[in-house]
Order: sequence, then C-alpha cells, then structure tokens
Amino acid sequence: MTFSVAVAGASGYAGGELLRLLASHPEFEITTVTAHSNAGQPVAAVHPHLRSLAEKVFVATNAQHLAGHDIVFLALPHGASGALTAQLDPDTLVVDCGADHRLESEEDWAAFYGGDFFGAWTYGVPELLIGSGKQREKLVGTKRIAAPGCNASTVELSLAPGIAAGVIESLDIVTVLAVGPSGAGKALKTNLLAAEILGTANPYAVGGTHRHIPEIIQGLRWAGAERATVSFTPVLVPMSRGILATTTAKIVPGTTAEQIRAAWEGAYADETFVHLLPEGVFPRTADVLGANTALMGLAIDEAAGRVIIVTAVDNLAKGTAGAAIQSANIALGLPEATGLPIDGVAP
Amino acid sequence: MTFSVAVAGASGYAGGELLRLLASHPEFEITTVTAHSNAGQPVAAVHPHLRSLAEKVFVATNAQHLAGHDIVFLALPHGASGALTAQLDPDTLVVDCGADHRLESEEDWAAFYGGDFFGAWTYGVPELLIGSGKQREKLVGTKRIAAPGCNASTVELSLAPGIAAGVIESLDIVTVLAVGPSGAGKALKTNLLAAEILGTANPYAVGGTHRHIPEIIQGLRWAGAERATVSFTPVLVPMSRGILATTTAKIVPGTTAEQIRAAWEGAYADETFVHLLPEGVFPRTADVLGANTALMGLAIDEAAGRVIIVTAVDNLAKGTAGAAIQSANIALGLPEATGLPIDGVAP
Amino acid sequence: MTFSVAVAGASGYAGGELLRLLASHPEFEITTVTAHSNAGQPVAAVHPHLRSLAEKVFVATNAQHLAGHDIVFLALPHGASGALTAQLDPDTLVVDCGADHRLESEEDWAAFYGGDFFGAWTYGVPELLIGSGKQREKLVGTKRIAAPGCNASTVELSLAPGIAAGVIESLDIVTVLAVGPSGAGKALKTNLLAAEILGTANPYAVGGTHRHIPEIIQGLRWAGAERATVSFTPVLVPMSRGILATTTAKIVPGTTAEQIRAAWEGAYADETFVHLLPEGVFPRTADVLGANTALMGLAIDEAAGRVIIVTAVDNLAKGTAGAAIQSANIALGLPEATGLPIDGVAP
Amino acid sequence: MTFSVAVAGASGYAGGELLRLLASHPEFEITTVTAHSNAGQPVAAVHPHLRSLAEKVFVATNAQHLAGHDIVFLALPHGASGALTAQLDPDTLVVDCGADHRLESEEDWAAFYGGDFFGAWTYGVPELLIGSGKQREKLVGTKRIAAPGCNASTVELSLAPGIAAGVIESLDIVTVLAVGPSGAGKALKTNLLAAEILGTANPYAVGGTHRHIPEIIQGLRWAGAERATVSFTPVLVPMSRGILATTTAKIVPGTTAEQIRAAWEGAYADETFVHLLPEGVFPRTADVLGANTALMGLAIDEAAGRVIIVTAVDNLAKGTAGAAIQSANIALGLPEATGLPIDGVAP
Repeated sequence: MTFSVAVAGASGYAGGELLRLLASHPEFEITTVTAHSNAGQPVAAVHPHLRSLAEKVFVATNAQHLAGHDIVFLALPHGASGALTAQLDPDTLVVDCGADHRLESEEDWAAFYGGDFFGAWTYGVPELLIGSGKQREKLVGTKRIAAPGCNASTVELSLAPGIAAGVIESLDIVTVLAVGPSGAGKALKTNLLAAEILGTANPYAVGGTHRHIPEIIQGLRWAGAERATVSFTPVLVPMSRGILATTTAKIVPGTTAEQIRAAWEGAYADETFVHLLPEGVFPRTADVLGANTALMGLAIDEAAGRVIIVTAVDNLAKGTAGAAIQSANIALGLPEATGLPIDGVAP
Repeated sequence: MTFSVAVAGASGYAGGELLRLLASHPEFEITTVTAHSNAGQPVAAVHPHLRSLAEKVFVATNAQHLAGHDIVFLALPHGASGALTAQLDPDTLVVDCGADHRLESEEDWAAFYGGDFFGAWTYGVPELLIGSGKQREKLVGTKRIAAPGCNASTVELSLAPGIAAGVIESLDIVTVLAVGPSGAGKALKTNLLAAEILGTANPYAVGGTHRHIPEIIQGLRWAGAERATVSFTPVLVPMSRGILATTTAKIVPGTTAEQIRAAWEGAYADETFVHLLPEGVFPRTADVLGANTALMGLAIDEAAGRVIIVTAVDNLAKGTAGAAIQSANIALGLPEATGLPIDGVAP
Repeated sequence: MTFSVAVAGASGYAGGELLRLLASHPEFEITTVTAHSNAGQPVAAVHPHLRSLAEKVFVATNAQHLAGHDIVFLALPHGASGALTAQLDPDTLVVDCGADHRLESEEDWAAFYGGDFFGAWTYGVPELLIGSGKQREKLVGTKRIAAPGCNASTVELSLAPGIAAGVIESLDIVTVLAVGPSGAGKALKTNLLAAEILGTANPYAVGGTHRHIPEIIQGLRWAGAERATVSFTPVLVPMSRGILATTTAKIVPGTTAEQIRAAWEGAYADETFVHLLPEGVFPRTADVLGANTALMGLAIDEAAGRVIIVTAVDNLAKGTAGAAIQSANIALGLPEATGLPIDGVAP
Repeated sequence: MTFSVAVAGASGYAGGELLRLLASHPEFEITTVTAHSNAGQPVAAVHPHLRSLAEKVFVATNAQHLAGHDIVFLALPHGASGALTAQLDPDTLVVDCGADHRLESEEDWAAFYGGDFFGAWTYGVPELLIGSGKQREKLVGTKRIAAPGCNASTVELSLAPGIAAGVIESLDIVTVLAVGPSGAGKALKTNLLAAEILGTANPYAVGGTHRHIPEIIQGLRWAGAERATVSFTPVLVPMSRGILATTTAKIVPGTTAEQIRAAWEGAYADETFVHLLPEGVFPRTADVLGANTALMGLAIDEAAGRVIIVTAVDNLAKGTAGAAIQSANIALGLPEATGLPIDGVAP
C-alpha cells in the first residue's frame, strides 16, 4: 500500500530534507508540495539537488491543498501550523516539524515563544526513554506528531539513559553545541551570510534564552527527572549541517563507571538509529551527514565528577525530517526504518 | 635600540606566526631562524605567506645557532626545549612557546606529559589576575618566560576575574572549546587531513585527558581558587585558526548580576588586548584573527545558576606567538603593545 | 538474484564510497572487504559513517580473498590492480577504480604514469558519446571495466556532445576545476592538512602535467575529435568532496546558439544521471553531493567566441564509485540506475 | 605630517577593510566614518574586529560630513559616488572604491552598468604596465583615483607583462576565478547565505556578463593589446576572502620559455607587492590574506600552446582597500608601501 503525502512549507531547508528523504521512501508518494513565495515554481528552481522531483510544482500553502492526503508534513514557521491543522481531517496523519505542538506547558510556551498556544502532540523521538518504556510506544496509531527541535532531541537522547538509570544528576547539566547554519533556516540575516560564518565560530542565544531549553527539560522529566537545569549554548561553526552536542552531567555519588556505561548501552543496544560508540571513540558530524542516525560517545571524568556525552546528529535528517518520517512510519504500523538512510555521507 | 632575535622551530605553525608578528615589530630584528627537516631552505619554501622574510634561510636547531642573540623564542615540541635552554646564556631572554616550563607541579607534569621535568618559568599571560595584582608584574625583568597553552590561557582569562572576586565557584567548571586545526600543528595524522575536518565537528581528548587541564587549574589557583575542577572538551571545527571557549561556572549564592559583571569589567577595563564586550554581545573568532586580542562576552543564566563566559582568541596569535612577544616586551621594559596587532582580519 | 561482491582497498575514500553505495544496492551483497594496513580492523574503525557495515572486518588484499565472488571492485593505488587482476577468474566481473586500465596508449601511460602497462578495459562512463552511439553499449556483458578518472569523466561529459555534433572545436580547450581534497585520497601530505586547505584556494599540477589529461583527450577522440588540446588546471578548495569544472571551447564558426544547446540537449535528454540545466542556470557541487548525478550548465559568450560548460560532479560518487556501480549494473544486465542515488544532499 | 581621512560607506566589507588598514597607517588619521542604515552606531557594533576604532561613531553619508578632509575614501554602491563627488572640494584627494570612475568608455559603462556615466579617474593599480611605463607614474599628484575591481586588477596584473612583451596573444584569453563571498558585499541574498556556500562551489555571471570584463579589456589595451577577448568565469568557493585567478593565454608562435618568464620577471622584479614565484611554485589565497600582496605562479603548457598564470589576491586588501591606500600614498608623495602589510595571515 502506498500512502499519499503532502509537504507544507517544502521550500525551506527542513522541507527540502523531507522531500529528499520521502523521495526514496518505498511506501510514501509525494503528491503535493506547498510553499509561500515560491508557489508556482518547480522544485528544481528552489532545491536544485532534488533531481528526482525537479519538475513537481509548488502550490500555495492552505488547507485546501493539504486536504485529501494520508499524511501531511508541516515545515512551517512556528505559529503557522497551529491555525492550519485545525482545518485538517482528524483522520489524516499530521506531522509538524515546527515548534507549535512540542511543549505541554503553556507557561513555557508563553515564556519562550509567545502567541497562541496550541497544545502538545505526540512527541516524535521514538528512542526517548519514558518511564519504563520508550516514546515509540506512544507513537503507534497516533494521528498527530510533533517532530522535535533538533538541538533538543540531541540533548535529550544524550541524557535520558543516565537519568532513567539514576546514575547522573538532572540538576546542573551543561551542554555546548557546535551547529551548522542550516538549522537557522533560509532567513536573510546578516549574521547568516557566508562571509560571516566562514572561518569563524559564532555563539548565539547565550545565557539560557534558546527556545529548545524548555523542550529539553520536558524530555528529561519524562525520562524520570524530578527537576532539571540546563546551561545551553549553541555555537555556529562553518559546516552547512550538523550538531555536535557536548553534554556533561554530574555523576550521582557512589555510581561506578560500569553502571554508567551500562545505562547507555542498555538503552540503545537494540536501536537502529541511535548508537553508543565503543569506549574512547567519539563521533563526528560527518559520520551522520544525511542519515537518520545519532552517534554518541561517552567519557567519565573522575576528577571533574562528570559524565561527558558527545552526540552527533544531522540537524535536518535525524534532527528534523528523519525523526518526522521515522515517527510517521511507527504511527502507520510500517517497519520503523522504512526509507531512512543509516549511513552518513563522509568524508 | 634594536634587539636581535632567534626563533627556534620556526618552520611550524607557531614558529611561522612568531615570524609574522616579529617581522613588523619595530624593536626586534629577526637574525636567525632554525628548523629541523627544513634547515637549508628559504622561509618562502615553508611559509609562502611571509614575503618580507622570503629569502632568509633556516639553519639547524642547536645551541650554537641560538647563541649570541638578545632574545630566543622556542617553538619546539615539548621535551625539546628543556634540554636546549640549559645551554643558553642565562642573560639571554628565552621565551618558550612549548609546554616544558609551564607547570610548577612535577606530579602534574608526570601525569599529563611524562619524561624529564624542567621546572616552571615565568608564565606569559600578562593580564592574568594573581592574588591582588596581575601576572604582568612578574614578567618585568625576567629572563625566562613560558608562553601559555592556547586553550589554557583562554580559559584562565575567562575565569580569573570571577574567581578573584569570589563571585563564581572554582569547583565544577565546565568548558567546551571550538578550535581550529592549526593548534594541532603540522603533524601528519589522518584525523588532521582536510577531508576529515571540512564540513564536520570533531571532538578529541574527551573526558579529562587534555594536557592543558593542569595548566588551567594552576592558573585558577593563582587567581585565588583553593581547589578547582574543570570538565574540558575541545572540538575541532573547520576554521584554520581560532579558539571559541564557552566556559561556565556556578554562581556563588547571594551574588548579584551587577557584582558579576563588575568583576570582569574591573579586571580588564584598562587592558589593551583583553576586552569584556557589552551585555548581550558575544565574540566570534574571526574578530581576533591574526590579532593579539581576546574578546569576551558574559551572560548570567539564573535558571541554571551559572555564569557563561564566551571568549575568542586566535590560538596562534594571542594564544601563542602574540603572548610570547607581549611578555617579551614587558620583560625588556618596552611598551607592552609594541609591534602587536589589535584589530582582527574579518570577514 | 543477488551478486556477491568483494571490494579491494576498501579503507580509502573511494573504497569507503563504494561500500556506502553498495550497502544500499538491492542486488549486490558485500561479502569481502580488503585493506592493507587496516586489515583485521572492523569497518567502523576506519569508516565510522558506515554504520550498516560497522562490524564487518577488513582482510588482507590478495587474490585468494578476492576469489569466488561475482564482482570484484578494486580501489587500489595505480600499479597495484594490474598485477592482482591477472590472478582473478576471467569470468568474474572486475571493476577497477584506479588508473591502470583506462588508457589505450602505452605511450601516454609511460609519459603520465610510468611502470608496467596493463592495457585498457571497457571504460566506465556509460553516457559518453562514442561515434554514433554511447559507451553504455560497450559495457553490456563486459567482464573488465575501468572506472574513469573523476576529473577526466567530468570534462569528457562536458565536451563530448559539442564535439560529436561538430559545434565546438577540440583544439584549444581550457578547463579549470574547483576540487575537494578527498579526490587526493588519504595520503599524509602537508599540503592536504586541514590547516593548509581551510580558507584558501590552492592550485596544483599546473601547466599540463595532470594525469587525467591523456584520458580526457582519449575520450574526446572517441567522441569524434581528430586531435584535441586541453589546458587543464585543478584548484583545491575547502569542500571535502566535489568537482566544479568550468570548461570552455571555441565555437565552430557559423554555428548558431540553437545548434549549440541542441547538441547537449540531444545528448542527455534521456539520461537518468546526466542533465543539462535550463538556460541561465548553473550547478553547484552541493547539488550532487553523495549522488551519481552530473549537472551541467551551458553559456555562450559571443564576444569571446567560446562555449562555457560548467559541470558539477561528486568526485567519489559519479566521479568514481557511482560510475563503477552504474557500469557494473549495465555489464550484468541490471537496470542501470539500480541502487544509485539521484538526489544530492544539500544544503 | 598627518593627513585627515574620511571613509564613506565604512559599514560594508570594503569599508571595514579600509578602516582596518588605515588604523595602522602612520600618516593617516581616520577622522570621519559614514554609513547609511548604521549611522549613529559605534564601529564596534558593525565591525567587532576593529577594536582600535571600537567607539568611533558612524555619521550619515553626505557631502557635508565628507568636507574638510585631506583624503576621502568612498566605498559606496556604484552610482552613489558619482553624484557625491561633484560636491567635494577639487583639491581633496578622493579615492573611489566603487565602479563609477573606472571605465573610460561610455559605451562599456552603458552595456555593463547603465545609469549616469561619470567618466574615468586615474586607475589605482600602480604596478600595471602602461605603454613603456607603469600606472604608478600617472598616480603622482592626482586628486581623483578609481580603485580597481578586485577581479579585474588580478587578471590585468596576470596578463599585462606578457602582452606588453608581445609573448602572449590578447585574443582568446580564458580566466576562471575561485572567489570568496566577501567580494559580493553584505547584500542579503539567499545565494550568499552560509548554508548555500559551505561545502560547495558555485559559479555565477557565466558567459561574458560579469562587469569586470570591460575593465580587464581596458587594462589590456593600456598594456599594449590592440584588441582583446576574455572568457571570464568566477566561482564562489567556501573561503571568506580571496581570489585565485587561473588565467591562460595563447603563446605567440616562436616565443621561447625563457622569453616568457623573462617578461613577468622583468615587470615585477622591483615591486614590493607583486611577485612572480619561482618556477613550479604557485600561490594560495591564504598566502596573501589581509596583505596588499599579489603572488603569481607561471607555467607553460607546450602541448596546449598556452601560458597559465595563477594569481592570488585578497579581494578586500590588494583587490580593493590596499590598492586604494597604496594609490593614495603615491598621489600624496608618501613612500608607496606606507602602512600596508606585505605578509599574509596563514595558515
């Protein structure tokens, strides 16, 4: 059986990655692609890398064009999907790659985003530890999925095993992320110009202001944390894609090194897309480029009393579009890995 | 008066940067440049960017060639300078850009480097707060200077004001550094090949093993810390030069935001080369490219209970060669900024 | 039916790309992977991006290990495959990604490579115009394939339509290529270090010395040129992969702009992997990253009397491993595009 | 004596580079800096790398603010300087870094730029061969200087010696340039976003449409060409600054290799800022980063019948701001190299 698919906001970077991955999905067929200012243009004019969809034409983003599909993926600016989805058939599987349906707390939404609050959908990180199970279970049969923030899911996956196992503390987490500028989208801002990014590292949203922080804390609570604090600093570096999150947490006193590694090993041993690397090995973002894979290395710094987890994710793939498709596969009862690349494109 | 200068190990990246900066120093004259495998070649064959020294020829690195100069800069692998300097005139000003004379503790040396221990020289970070003064005072008149580790001095300058003022805790510091591969030198290693670095972020020395850690802790002790722990993770990113250190420390309970900013403002208000940027502004490494300047932005994350200091330094300039020359200027009684660039080369 | 596959020299960049593409080929099964110094190690230790093959172990490169497979891909230094293939079963399909079997002229081999001459195999560029047909026809049923030089095939595909149609002159061709360092392999050379490539453009093999020149001229002869001269200059630029060839040729007097575009349009209209872009549109290497696709833009400069063809190819994919697999598909009677990605990974 | 200086349009990349170089010029004092939308802001807000000018404030760009200075540098969009300079004192030295006063031919202006034609000023490429002398001579005492187009001057310097000596033909020149995006300025265009430039090579203005073409042909005429044709293709590559021009020209029949090298050697032997590298050596853009230096390598391809000249220039330094200041030095009777860096910042 083939499912018909519409992608709204398909002209941006996240939308383009959805199209790239969907184009080789054996059970999904891209029927409709929508855009705002690019409506009327062929895909090739906006995404010259998508040769297999080159002549498909963007139509305007509205409920009419999205109606009648089995699946609708939304890659819209936050605030835009909330209004739109109210008009979609409740039986359509809708996967939102924006922020509108990630947060359960209206207070957090108001503090970090503002504007209308739309309420949370099923969170699209299947491998996330939730109580005694995993988020995967909640995705089965759901009709509404909130794909995660790319930085948020990277940090959540880095920490959840240790929190669920009680080997790390959820207070006083520190994470610093090297990120590529495609995560910021196609916005025409001076600080995203190539001349401003090439040859330099550039921090932003320093000091607890990044919108992914409440999402991370929500995920850590689901994993078992009573309370969590996270110092979160992203640094733009000159690579088009990728997140390398260096996350550290205090070791719970009395925990052994074996117990610590065992927590992560146990959590991800059976996963297709999330892997703990052998001791002493750490990932590079190139290793997951274009893939729906998260690679993780773990070190224990006894002198500092901290665990360090370094996790590499492609912000557009596993961070956004891959997570969305993986979650849709689960929701529809398809094999979870259907159509998703495991190997990165390196060097 | 002009001082005659020899640079030993001038064929590497640190050596090349010493030559570049020394070439425009009005009081120093480069008389001798030494190298190992490149001895006999002209500077242009190794450093094609140094047109003003193009025809000067490298001689072999030995005590004979280094004798008879007012100043000797050493840019040698660790272990090599210790033996060599024993043979130099005690009245010659010797500035070592290697690690051999940075650490006071033989135990630290044995744990992180190993091999013969040579003892500490005067540390070459003039702006570092030491007790109630600054390291600058100790440099006046000295004949032996240990230029700092580039990552170490970046983190020390980031933290010293807060520690000296008692507003941040020295336990449980976390720092993650985006660094360019020139810091690793010209070593022919697969992981330093361009194809391995381009388009990717690559962590190394994760988990408390980096050799700059004891140097940082030593610096923090000088600044007033009784004990310090530092989780330190460097991440190679695709820029040839530069360090962007994101350093966080716990705020001492009861401290106000004003007290915190005042600590850094007070420490660096009169400095030529170290600057605290205005609130909400953070530096990029491009801003200090080629310059002897450290730029620093500071944020307070109340929810996380941490101060975040983001500091940008050119690892070869302020991180190594610039610090060496600045310290030599002070040792010789010259104006501290003589011959040193303040402005970075951007974009 | 599944074909068993061995890849010799699988630890290099070309070998890694063969593995990446073969891993998702539905008709091929990677049975054996060989390496030299990495023999005994798992694939993950050398190619951490290849998670789907992570635990497969490299064995030594020798005829014994390569025997008994349906297909053998060779990714060895030039000179190494010639001796080895003499020992392989004549009925095995052997695809050499090295240079040993590309050139028909022993004189050219001696002038540009030297050492033993092994003779030419069927050239692995299916879309290349050859007389009144295409190279594809010669590949059907062959047992020995020489995958092309990445730069060579890029320039041949750029020019062949115009030469076959008689609209451009084959004398006085000029081509300048922006290339990524992965094309130079994993060789430990100072000029391939990241610090030497980041932020800079670096020409090499200037002045008619590059080894792909005789291969290009051979390809142009096949396409119909009586004689050809090519000024060929590659420039290393800071991208891990990719070739952007800017190739110009003199317009044959009396030719119209319509005739010129028609030559390329006609040649590639039915191709899956080679495309002429619309007038005024030119490709970027990102558009073909990881894909077996060549994109081409064409402009006519009347004042200069030249056609300019700009062609983008991923040197490891369409330039090497993709061409090898595409050619193997044809040789074995499989649909030509089996297992090969069309869409690039961008941005 | 110190000359007072105003820089108009100082908030752009060319303006920033003027400020950077002027800040260390011993005879010039920056009195006034003007901007359009950034008027009222301090320099540090726009150019955080210019610490030595951090607190100077931009004023609006108008004739009043520019009046009363010894020198006025203009770094304005083309069309803007023409109108403005009519209002400046004829005795003020005015150096225009825009295109308004480069072309002598109104026809060329109309064809490539359009709008009002302002007429040519003295061209600011001192080393350019003009008849039996050099452009330097024309600059002495002039009050109006047109700094060159960065690509144009790079190609002119590459070719002029061969044309003046009659060893290369001026018809059928082909040049392909790898260029960094800072040359395109701070314009907010999608194709200049970092995600579009990182990891990729991107051609533009293909097919004889680039505005620097008539400027190059004008320069070649001055050097002695009766007529010239140039196929000119720029390719954006992921480096913030730099031009690497690979230029080829047909060898005049009967010319020897010695005669060819002698032409370039003779032309630049006594120059401070333009150098022919030894045989077999070619420049990288990193070698001239931040410097007022042009480095050139020359090869002869006998099979192709062409000379290849590869020239590296920093588009903002020697390509624009450095040329402007060097020309101003000459016009004012100062030593030509005053205040200008010779050594590049590498690696």
